[in-house]
Amino acid sequence: MEIQIGRGKTARRAYGFDEIALSPGSKTLDPSLADTNWSIGGIDREIPIIASAMDGVVDVKMAVELSKLGALGVLNLEGVQTRYEDPNPILDKIASVGKDEFVILMQGLYQEPIKPELVEKRIQEIKAQGGIVAVSATPAGAARFGLVAAKAGAQLFFIQATVVSTNHTSPEDIAPLDLAKFCQEMPIPVILGNCVTYDVTLELMKAGAAGIMVGIGPGAACTSRGVLGVGVPQATAVADCAAARDEFFKTTGTYIPIIADGGLVTGGDICKCIACGADAVMIGSPFARSVEAPGRGFHWGMATPSPILPRGTRIKVGTTGTLKQILRGPAILDDGTHNLLGALQTSMGTLGAATIKEMQQVNVVIAPSLLTEGKVYQKAQQLGMGK
Amino acid sequence: MEIQIGRGKTARRAYGFDEIALSPGSKTLDPSLADTNWSIGGIDREIPIIASAMDGVVDVKMAVELSKLGALGVLNLEGVQTRYEDPNPILDKIASVGKDEFVILMQGLYQEPIKPELVEKRIQEIKAQGGIVAVSATPAGAARFGLVAAKAGAQLFFIQATVVSTNHTSPEDIAPLDLAKFCQEMPIPVILGNCVTYDVTLELMKAGAAGIMVGIGPGAACTSRGVLGVGVPQATAVADCAAARDEFFKTTGTYIPIIADGGLVTGGDICKCIACGADAVMIGSPFARSVEAPGRGFHWGMATPSPILPRGTRIKVGTTGTLKQILRGPAILDDGTHNLLGALQTSMGTLGAATIKEMQQVNVVIAPSLLTEGKVYQKAQQLGMGK
Amino acid sequence: MEIQIGRGKTARRAYGFDEIALSPGSKTLDPSLADTNWSIGGIDREIPIIASAMDGVVDVKMAVELSKLGALGVLNLEGVQTRYEDPNPILDKIASVGKDEFVILMQGLYQEPIKPELVEKRIQEIKAQGGIVAVSATPAGAARFGLVAAKAGAQLFFIQATVVSTNHTSPEDIAPLDLAKFCQEMPIPVILGNCVTYDVTLELMKAGAAGIMVGIGPGAACTSRGVLGVGVPQATAVADCAAARDEFFKTTGTYIPIIADGGLVTGGDICKCIACGADAVMIGSPFARSVEAPGRGFHWGMATPSPILPRGTRIKVGTTGTLKQILRGPAILDDGTHNLLGALQTSMGTLGAATIKEMQQVNVVIAPSLLTEGKVYQKAQQLGMGK
Amino acid sequence: MEIQIGRGKTARRAYGFDEIALSPGSKTLDPSLADTNWSIGGIDREIPIIASAMDGVVDVKMAVELSKLGALGVLNLEGVQTRYEDPNPILDKIASVGKDEFVILMQGLYQEPIKPELVEKRIQEIKAQGGIVAVSATPAGAARFGLVAAKAGAQLFFIQATVVSTNHTSPEDIAPLDLAKFCQEMPIPVILGNCVTYDVTLELMKAGAAGIMVGIGPGAACTSRGVLGVGVPQATAVADCAAARDEFFKTTGTYIPIIADGGLVTGGDICKCIACGADAVMIGSPFARSVEAPGRGFHWGMATPSPILPRGTRIKVGTTGTLKQILRGPAILDDGTHNLLGALQTSMGTLGAATIKEMQQVNVVIAPSLLTEGKVYQKAQQLGMGK
Repeated sequence: MEIQIGRGKTARRAYGFDEIALSPGSKTLDPSLADTNWSIGGIDREIPIIASAMDGVVDVKMAVELSKLGALGVLNLEGVQTRYEDPNPILDKIASVGKDEFVILMQGLYQEPIKPELVEKRIQEIKAQGGIVAVSATPAGAARFGLVAAKAGAQLFFIQATVVSTNHTSPEDIAPLDLAKFCQEMPIPVILGNCVTYDVTLELMKAGAAGIMVGIGPGAACTSRGVLGVGVPQATAVADCAAARDEFFKTTGTYIPIIADGGLVTGGDICKCIACGADAVMIGSPFARSVEAPGRGFHWGMATPSPILPRGTRIKVGTTGTLKQILRGPAILDDGTHNLLGALQTSMGTLGAATIKEMQQVNVVIAPSLLTEGKVYQKAQQLGMGK
Repeated sequence: MEIQIGRGKTARRAYGFDEIALSPGSKTLDPSLADTNWSIGGIDREIPIIASAMDGVVDVKMAVELSKLGALGVLNLEGVQTRYEDPNPILDKIASVGKDEFVILMQGLYQEPIKPELVEKRIQEIKAQGGIVAVSATPAGAARFGLVAAKAGAQLFFIQATVVSTNHTSPEDIAPLDLAKFCQEMPIPVILGNCVTYDVTLELMKAGAAGIMVGIGPGAACTSRGVLGVGVPQATAVADCAAARDEFFKTTGTYIPIIADGGLVTGGDICKCIACGADAVMIGSPFARSVEAPGRGFHWGMATPSPILPRGTRIKVGTTGTLKQILRGPAILDDGTHNLLGALQTSMGTLGAATIKEMQQVNVVIAPSLLTEGKVYQKAQQLGMGK
Repeated sequence: MEIQIGRGKTARRAYGFDEIALSPGSKTLDPSLADTNWSIGGIDREIPIIASAMDGVVDVKMAVELSKLGALGVLNLEGVQTRYEDPNPILDKIASVGKDEFVILMQGLYQEPIKPELVEKRIQEIKAQGGIVAVSATPAGAARFGLVAAKAGAQLFFIQATVVSTNHTSPEDIAPLDLAKFCQEMPIPVILGNCVTYDVTLELMKAGAAGIMVGIGPGAACTSRGVLGVGVPQATAVADCAAARDEFFKTTGTYIPIIADGGLVTGGDICKCIACGADAVMIGSPFARSVEAPGRGFHWGMATPSPILPRGTRIKVGTTGTLKQILRGPAILDDGTHNLLGALQTSMGTLGAATIKEMQQVNVVIAPSLLTEGKVYQKAQQLGMGK
Repeated sequence: MEIQIGRGKTARRAYGFDEIALSPGSKTLDPSLADTNWSIGGIDREIPIIASAMDGVVDVKMAVELSKLGALGVLNLEGVQTRYEDPNPILDKIASVGKDEFVILMQGLYQEPIKPELVEKRIQEIKAQGGIVAVSATPAGAARFGLVAAKAGAQLFFIQATVVSTNHTSPEDIAPLDLAKFCQEMPIPVILGNCVTYDVTLELMKAGAAGIMVGIGPGAACTSRGVLGVGVPQATAVADCAAARDEFFKTTGTYIPIIADGGLVTGGDICKCIACGADAVMIGSPFARSVEAPGRGFHWGMATPSPILPRGTRIKVGTTGTLKQILRGPAILDDGTHNLLGALQTSMGTLGAATIKEMQQVNVVIAPSLLTEGKVYQKAQQLGMGK
C-alpha cells in the first residue's frame, strides 16, 4: 500500500468522500424500516448527527431545538456565548463586516475574556428548556472549565483540538492536560478529538474517551491543509479509526462511537461517512443554513480568532430553511441539504441496511466525482456564467 | 481489484463514461453498413435508443413520433399526463416558475391523484396514432395500473425504481410487489430496473424481466449521489450487468437486453455505453431539447415531486432542433447532440463494428477527459468569461 | 496492463500530453547545438513542424511562406481553395457569422463542387512561388485527384481520414480505395493517416506509406470524442506507433517518419510529442493565429461541413503574431505559442538531446497538470473573474 | 515503478505538492518548542525560508529586512538593480504597463547592460545596513561577476539556471562555466541549481556546492512546462534530491542543504516541502505581496526578458501586509500566506516534529486536492460568480 513519492519518501494513498460512492447490493428496504438510533455516553439519540461547537452554529436555542428533534448540539464554551452576556450584537457585527475586516474583528472580539458565570448560565439555560447539555472546550479550556461545566449540569464534555494526542510535549512552565486523568476525574462522559489514525484512536479510548471525533483538515470553514499542509481525507481516516473501535470493542467489550467531523455538507456525505464506519457525524455548515442558527447566514471556523495564526475562513452559506426542514424535512431543496434524516433512511433503504451497524458494512466503490469538461460546462451554465 | 480505503474498508474502482474512450482496431466499415437493429420484448427497432419516462421528455405525441422514427418512447404513468386531463397549462407553469419555487410547485402538482381513466386514455391515444405503446410505473404504481395498462393496449411495461431488488423488505402492513409474480401475470413483456450489479441482473432475469435498465445515480437531472451518496459509474455498471446477460443467455438460451439508463448526453456517450456491453440506451435530456418535447426547453427528474425528500433538479436545456434532427439528422449542431443514429453508425464504421453485438466487443481505453489548466482556459473563453 | 472496467470488459490506460512532462538528465546542451533536421519522402526540412491541411490554416501563401521558413504546409484539396476561384469572400463570410449559423453556413459552402482545374491551379501557384507542394485529400478525394495533383507538380500527397485502415468494407456499389495500390501507382510519396495503433502503423508502412499521421480525436477543433466516443490520448498513441516504426526499420531498413497530429498548442506539446517518439508534428491552431493565416483569427475542423454529422467546432483563436514569430521568433508572447523552433531547441538543450533521435529517448514522467483548487483560483483571477 | 505509456516508452509517476498532505502521528508538541534553525554555507538562520532572486521580490531594502527577521534574501545580479542606477522609475513602469505590452517592455529594459560598479554598490549597500549579502547570477553571469561580488563583500553566491548540469556542451567558441573550478576558486560558498534528480544533486555536491536548489518548472511565474514541456513535480524532485544529500552525507560527512525552489505559495506548501526532505525553501510570490517588495504588487519570472524565447508571466499578486506579517505574523489573513514561520511551527507541533530533521521524517499521504463538483461550486460562489 506504500507508494514511492521519491527515493527518500513513501506515502499511502488516502481517500476522501468526493472519491467514493455507495453501491447497492441484492436487497432493499423500505426507508421507514431503517433504524438510525445510536448512543453516546449513555445518552440515546434517534439521529446520528451532532451540530458542531461553533459560534455560528450552536447557541442555547439551537442546542435545545436539536435535542427535541432527536439530534444533539454542542455548545462552544470558549466562544462568544461565554465571553459576552448578550452575544446578539456581537453576532450582528460578525455578519455585517466585509471579508477583509473579518479576521481582525474576530481577533478583537476574542480578547474579551471567558466568564465562568456565563459558562454556568448557558448550561443552565439549555437544561431549563429541556435540552441535552453537551459542551466543548480546547484542552486548555477543559482544564479551566471542565468541573465548572459538569457541576452546572453538563451531560457530555467534548475536548477538541486540531490534533489531539496522549503524548503532547509542552513548554516547561505549562503542564499539558493529562487526558486520561481528566476523563477519570470528570463526573460526566468525555469525548475526545480530533484524530485520524488507528493508533491514536486506540490510545484515546484507553485514556477513557466516551467517543472519538475523527477528521483533520477537511472542513468547509477550515484551512488547516492550506496553512499547515496537514490533513487526511475523511474516508480513509474514518475507516482507520473505525477499525480501532472494533479492535477496542473486541478486546474490552466496550463500544466507543466514532464521530466523523468536518467537511460534510449533504445527506450523501453523511451516508458515506457511516458506510466507512462512523457511528455518527458532526456537521457545521448544514445547520448554519437554518433560520434558527446564530450565524445569520454565515459560517466560520473556530481557529479564526487566533491572534497569531488564524485558520478558517467565513463563508456566506445563506439561510435555506428551518432546523426541522434541514434535519427531518419535508425538504424544499433538492440538493441534499434538507431532510438529512430522510436522506440517511432512504439511502439505508436503497442499500438494504436496517441499522447503523449494517450501514457500516455496505459496499463502497471508488468513483471520483472529478470534474470533466462536460460537467464544468453544465456547472458554468447553472451558475449563470457565459451566454 | 479491491483497494484498501482504510484498515476497516476496501472498495473497488468503478469507471464512468468520462473516463473511457473507444479505440479503433485494424478494420473500418462504411457507416451505411453499420446495422443498429435490436429487439426488446419481441418488438424490433432500428435505433437502440429509448426516450426516458419523464414528464418533460415523453407525452403522447413524442411516443408516436419516436416510434415512427425507429426508436421508442416510454410514457410515465405516474406523471402529469395521468394526473391532469389537459397537461399543457401544467407544463407551462413548470417551465415558467423560478428555480427556487420549482420543488414546491412540483410537490403541489403531484398531490393531484392519478386517474385510471387517463392511464387508459393516453395509451389509446398513442395506439390510435400508430405508436408503439411503452409505459412506465414505480413498483407501487405497477401493482395499481399494470393490468389496466395492458388491457388498454400497452405493449411494453417498464417498472422503474431508483434501486430495484427481488429481496425488498416492506413495513408489515404493506405487501411489496412480487416482481416474479408480476412478470408472470402480466400479458405483456415487463422491463425492470434500475440495477447496477451482476447478481441483481441475474435475479431480475430469473424473475422474468424482458429487459434490464442499468444505472443508479448518473443522470444529469438526478441528484441521488449528492442526496443519498449512492451511485455507480456507468461504464462499470453496464459491463457488469452485460456479463450477467451473457451468463443468463449461456445458461438459458434467452437473450435479455441491457439498457443503459442515465447520464448520457452525446452520441459519444451512447457509443461508449454499447461498447461496454449495453444493447440499447435510455436517454432523457437529449430529447428534452427537441422542439416536440413537452418540457418546453426544461428537463427535470422524476424524484423531484417527492413530498419528503425531493431528488433531481430542473435544468434549462434549451430547444435545439426537431426530434428528427436529434435522432436521425442532418445535424446542424457539432457537439454530438444532433443525429444520434448517424453518430452511432459513424462510430461503428470507424471501429469496424457491423452490428450492435460487434460494437459491444470494440477496444476501450481508460483515458480520463479530466480538466487541465489549458482546457479550463479554453472553456472559459468559449463561455465568454474573462477578456 | 489491462485494467478491469467491469466483469465483461477490460481496458488499457492511455496517457495524454497533459499527463506527462519531460525530465532533465545528467547533461545539458547549448540550444544552438540542437539539430532539428528531419526528412519526409526524400524532402529535408530544418523544422519538424507541418501545418495542417485545414481551410483556416493553409492556403497558397501560407504553404510558400512555411516552406521558406524551413517548415512545411499541406494544402487541403477538398476545401474552399479548390471549390472557389476566389476563396477570400468565402473566408470573410466564415469569419463573420455567429456561432449558431456556422455549421449551416459551412454545410452550404461545401455544396459547391471541387474543381480539378483549381486543384491544378493552386499547386502551380505554390510551385511558382518556390514553395514545397504538399497536398491532402480524403481517400475518396485521393482516388479522384491523386494523379491530377501529381501531374500538376505536387511533391507530397497526404491521405487523411478520421481513421484509416487497410481493411475497409464499403457498400457493394463503391470500391474502397486500395491504399497499397494507390501508393504504388502514385509517382510521388504518399503519407497516410490517421491511425493510433502499432498494428495499423505496420500495415500502412507495408502498404507503402512514406509517413504516418498519428492521432484520433485529440485536436482543439475536433469533437470526435464527444460525437463518436472515439479517441486515443496522444502520448500513448505516438509511443505505440513509434514502436511500429522502429520495428519496421529493423525489419526492412526503411525509416518511415511518424507525424503526431492533433491537439498540440504550445512548444511544450511539440517537445512532448517528439519525446514520446514522433519525428515531426502536424499542427493547426498555432498557425491559425498568424497574421498570414487564411482563417482571419478563427480555426475550425475539416469534418464540420459534413452534411449529415458535422464534427469539429469553430474556435476564435485570435491573431497573435507573424508566421515567422510563431515559427522562429523572437517571441513577444510568453505562453509557448511563439518561437516554436526556439522552444524545441531550448527544450532539447535543457534535456541534453543533440538530435531528434536523441530527443525521442529523453526521460518522461507522469505528472498530471490537473486542476487543483489553488490553480483554479489563480486562473480565475487571471481571467478577471471574481473581485 | 515504471509505467508503460506506450509500447515504445515507459515513465515514472511523479508527485506534486497539490497531491500530498501531512498526516499526524502519535505525538504532538507545543509550537513554541519547534526549532526551525538551519544553516547554509556556515551562516545560521532561524527561518528556513529564502526570498528568490527576482526583480519584483528582492532589492537592497528587502535583503536587509529579511536578514533582520531571521530569513535570507538573494539579490539578482543580472536584473534591474544592476542595470539601472535608480531602479525605481523602471519598476514603476513595469507595474504600469498592460499585460500585452509587458514582454516587449521587459525585453527592452534588459538591453541596458549590467554595470559592474552597480554590482559592487548594491552589495555594499546591503552590507552597510547590516544585511546578509546573498547574490545570484546565471552561469554566464557568474563567470563575469563572481569574483567582483565576492570582493565587494558577498557572503553567499547562488548560480541559477533553469537546468544546471556538470556536463554541459557549448558551441566551440564559448567555454562553458566549469562549476567545480568556480566553486573551488570562489572565496565564498556557492549554491547551485536548479536540478531535480538524485544523480545531478550528487554531482553538484561533488563539484563543491554549498547548497542545492531543487525545482524545475513548478513556479507560479514560470511557464517552462508550457513552453518547453519540461518540469518535474516538486514532491518527487525534493524527495529524490534529499536522498542524494543523505547519501553524500553518509559518504563524506558533509551535510549540504537542499532548497526547494518554485511553486510554493502557502505555509502549507512550505511544510510539505520540508516533510519531503528539504532543509529550506526559496519563495518568490509570497514576498512579492509585501508592502516592502520592489514589485509594487506584481510578480514576474526572470526568464521573461529573454529576447528570443521569453518564459514566465507577470501576475498581479497584490499587496497584503508587511514583510514581518508575512514572515512572522501576527497574521490578518487566514489563507496561509501570513506568518509563514508560525505556520511551520504550528505544523511541526501538530506533527510532533521538534526539529527540521524530524519534520523531514513525518508521515505523508497521497491525497489529491483535486477539484470536485462541490468544490467548484463553492469556489465559484466565493469568487462572486453566479447568483
